[in-house]
Amino acid sequence: MSYCVALKLNQGLVFGADTRTNAGVDNVACFRKLHSWEVREERVIVMLTAGNLAVTQAVMSMLNERLTEPSAGTRNLYTVSTMFQVARLVGDALRAVRSVDGSALAASNNTFAASFIVGGQIRGDSPRLFSVYNEGNFIEATSDTPFFQIGEHKYGKPILDRVVVPEMTLEDAAKLMLLSFDSTLRSNLSVGMPLDLLLYRTDALHISLERRIGKDDPYFLGLSSGWSKALREAFTRLEPFELPDKAG
Amino acid sequence: MSYCVALKLNQGLVFGADTRTNAGVDNVACFRKLHSWEVREERVIVMLTAGNLAVTQAVMSMLNERLTEPSAGTRNLYTVSTMFQVARLVGDALRAVRSVDGSALAASNNTFAASFIVGGQIRGDSPRLFSVYNEGNFIEATSDTPFFQIGEHKYGKPILDRVVVPEMTLEDAAKLMLLSFDSTLRSNLSVGMPLDLLLYRTDALHISLERRIGKDDPYFLGLSSGWSKALREAFTRLEPFELPDKAG
Repeated sequence: MSYCVALKLNQGLVFGADTRTNAGVDNVACFRKLHSWEVREERVIVMLTAGNLAVTQAVMSMLNERLTEPSAGTRNLYTVSTMFQVARLVGDALRAVRSVDGSALAASNNTFAASFIVGGQIRGDSPRLFSVYNEGNFIEATSDTPFFQIGEHKYGKPILDRVVVPEMTLEDAAKLMLLSFDSTLRSNLSVGMPLDLLLYRTDALHISLERRIGKDDPYFLGLSSGWSKALREAFTRLEPFELPDKAG
Repeated sequence: MSYCVALKLNQGLVFGADTRTNAGVDNVACFRKLHSWEVREERVIVMLTAGNLAVTQAVMSMLNERLTEPSAGTRNLYTVSTMFQVARLVGDALRAVRSVDGSALAASNNTFAASFIVGGQIRGDSPRLFSVYNEGNFIEATSDTPFFQIGEHKYGKPILDRVVVPEMTLEDAAKLMLLSFDSTLRSNLSVGMPLDLLLYRTDALHISLERRIGKDDPYFLGLSSGWSKALREAFTRLEPFELPDKAG
């Protein structure tokens, strides 16, 4: 399992991913799931990956190999002109991997499972954010639902549902994302530190901030304990449930 | 899907369940999932059910039919002397239903899925709480993990993880349980109002409080909006995420 989340806000895009990969609880490793491509002044593309690591790494390798293909007219992450085309490239790569590996996985009753969040901005287009399904098709974030999650999304969703609005600042979004990770890390062992965080400010056309947050990160530790304390205090202040006198 | 949760505290037991049953999103109905048996001064038994409604209703019917069986020596919910034996009766009933319906469900590729939380107190025994698995075996709550959830447990778990302690009052536990339901109701359409809530105070040997909470319940509505407001305020007060000056 993984947990990846991305927000599309008026100020820009915010991406976060954990780094734990596991094949059973007795086989745990650390792999990066947040990837980015930057051509300063021209395009920033960010991708988050969840699912079968062999599949997601193959998709990454295919996307990267195409960048250096010499043939004229090659469509790749550096040549397409819209983020919609970027999402399509990701979906196409995923389908290409399935055509190679899918039947062998099915033959041994393994599922072919991979999903992606891909977003960014290409000059001339606005920042956009897509969620690419296991089948290679995809949806785009809108102001009604300005965030996507993949992997273990449930534990970290209630706080997002209550706080995310497109008007929030990138700083607030980063803080919120870390709280969403905190709830998830507490409940699902297959989601693990360190976390990767990337902020992109609208129209910057370069990555605004990229940071790896380890388990000893003082800001994250303070946020985690501060949030627990704040929740317990808020709970205490809520109107009490009244038992009728006769309830003994 | 369902959401049921029960807490074992020093002051007693608290049970909650939603009432939504669905076969697809286009076939939704309301069925009670919180059931109780009371022999005042002698025993209180409470059961929460999740899973295939045909299975859980069959288990309920078997347990109830046995109560009136005339044959001497019948072991039923009114005759066994410990809550451990109660949990075993539930597991046995579940296995009996599986032996009747399991192969037909398997033949049409339906899963046989049911799980239960059963708790209460029988005079001479302390209050106990069990989680009965789909296979009929079960585990018991202890002070390390004083609560069980069945059904859609993830959205409502972070708040429980942070607040539940065995020392909390029944009133606080009822409030907390409603908040856990609120988070779940917001995120999963297959969990729905009204909710059933039951409180049992240690050594009372009768049900202390049973209440159905509808979608217009003023206390629940106040709690829900108060909690959203409190979370947003707590979020605002947490230390901000600092962007370095160069991040533009």
